[in-house]
Amino acid sequence: MTAPLRFGLLLFPRLTQLDMTGPFEVLSRVPGGTVHLVWKTRDPVAADTGLTMLPDTDFATCPQLDVICVPGGPGVAALMEDAEVLAFLRRQADGARFVTSVCTGALVLGAAGLLKGVRATTHWASHDFLAALGAVPEHARWVRDGRVVTGGGVTAGIDFALALVAEMVSPEAAQAIQLQIEYAPSPPFAAGSPETAPPAVLAAAKARGAGMRAEREALVARVAARL
Amino acid sequence: MTAPLRFGLLLFPRLTQLDMTGPFEVLSRVPGGTVHLVWKTRDPVAADTGLTMLPDTDFATCPQLDVICVPGGPGVAALMEDAEVLAFLRRQADGARFVTSVCTGALVLGAAGLLKGVRATTHWASHDFLAALGAVPEHARWVRDGRVVTGGGVTAGIDFALALVAEMVSPEAAQAIQLQIEYAPSPPFAAGSPETAPPAVLAAAKARGAGMRAEREALVARVAARL
Repeated sequence: MTAPLRFGLLLFPRLTQLDMTGPFEVLSRVPGGTVHLVWKTRDPVAADTGLTMLPDTDFATCPQLDVICVPGGPGVAALMEDAEVLAFLRRQADGARFVTSVCTGALVLGAAGLLKGVRATTHWASHDFLAALGAVPEHARWVRDGRVVTGGGVTAGIDFALALVAEMVSPEAAQAIQLQIEYAPSPPFAAGSPETAPPAVLAAAKARGAGMRAEREALVARVAARL
Repeated sequence: MTAPLRFGLLLFPRLTQLDMTGPFEVLSRVPGGTVHLVWKTRDPVAADTGLTMLPDTDFATCPQLDVICVPGGPGVAALMEDAEVLAFLRRQADGARFVTSVCTGALVLGAAGLLKGVRATTHWASHDFLAALGAVPEHARWVRDGRVVTGGGVTAGIDFALALVAEMVSPEAAQAIQLQIEYAPSPPFAAGSPETAPPAVLAAAKARGAGMRAEREALVARVAARL
């Protein structure tokens, strides 16, 4: 692959910032690469946890990207019915080498019609919404199906981005970045997935998420009907 | 521990944003907790990779924090000789329950005189600077010595923050957050530490970092002489 590579990460209200900042840290270290933080305007955008960040590129002036990536978070609900966002993603997807997501960003790709018949993953708590959006659900840390790469929940974006760099640049380039960011993870617990979390912790998480799931079910049904 | 907990993360020019955004994602999910992004002013701050973020609290109006945390990045060099920053850290440290850092943020704690005789760690490429700043260097993903907790490079901030939540709130609270952020890491390579990275990748990283190391050696010597 010839440099420079143009990566674009969608920065939108109420995104989960680590979905974006994990891949951002990895991709911004690609030699000769550039990372665009893209939104409708360049006004400040607040994440679901309050962190406020500045987009550096707006839809109107965004160049064709080599990689478009949609992070997740509560804000995806609004994006899934936002014609301007979906049109931007489709337009970029036409010319991009890779169309990607982290976490529930996959639901936005799905709403844009970009996951039809495509093997994909997303955050565990939204995984069962993928099929209604035309995707072929797969449980993995990240899933590549042709030029579509989808990552699992939040922190999966770091693994996804390193895998993408290995594919687009070289394994050595990805390893160099992994070393720079000292990515030798050592979680204090084995609670990071539904399969390994203590049953009481999982049950409590599901109970807390029940309200959002009900809303999202209705949303996915509406969006799916239009696809 | 009674809620609410006040966490404060230092947000400074040329920080490595993932040093901060990793812990931010974890700590902002602590029930009843608040996270302050603290800097001299509330003007936008740009990370070393260009991501621009907004502080929400300035030094003058910052309440006493339960946890003060200093992330790392190239910008620590300026902080290590910045009397205003060092005074703020010392003032907060007097009343905080935990004094913490991620990555080369440990060098700033050291410059503030907060690591004297304290077991500590930092990014692998700066680890040998700890001793000159009075710390007792230790190689670990994170190190707790009394109320001082220091994390290793960049991504170690996620592990550090989960461990801190387990200590300050409960293991179940940390596990719930780990599940929310689907932190079941699966790096594509085992290149995240000097011990496991391919020798050629490590050698190249050291060669690229040689210039910064030379500057930092002189800086650490100047700072150490004042301690």
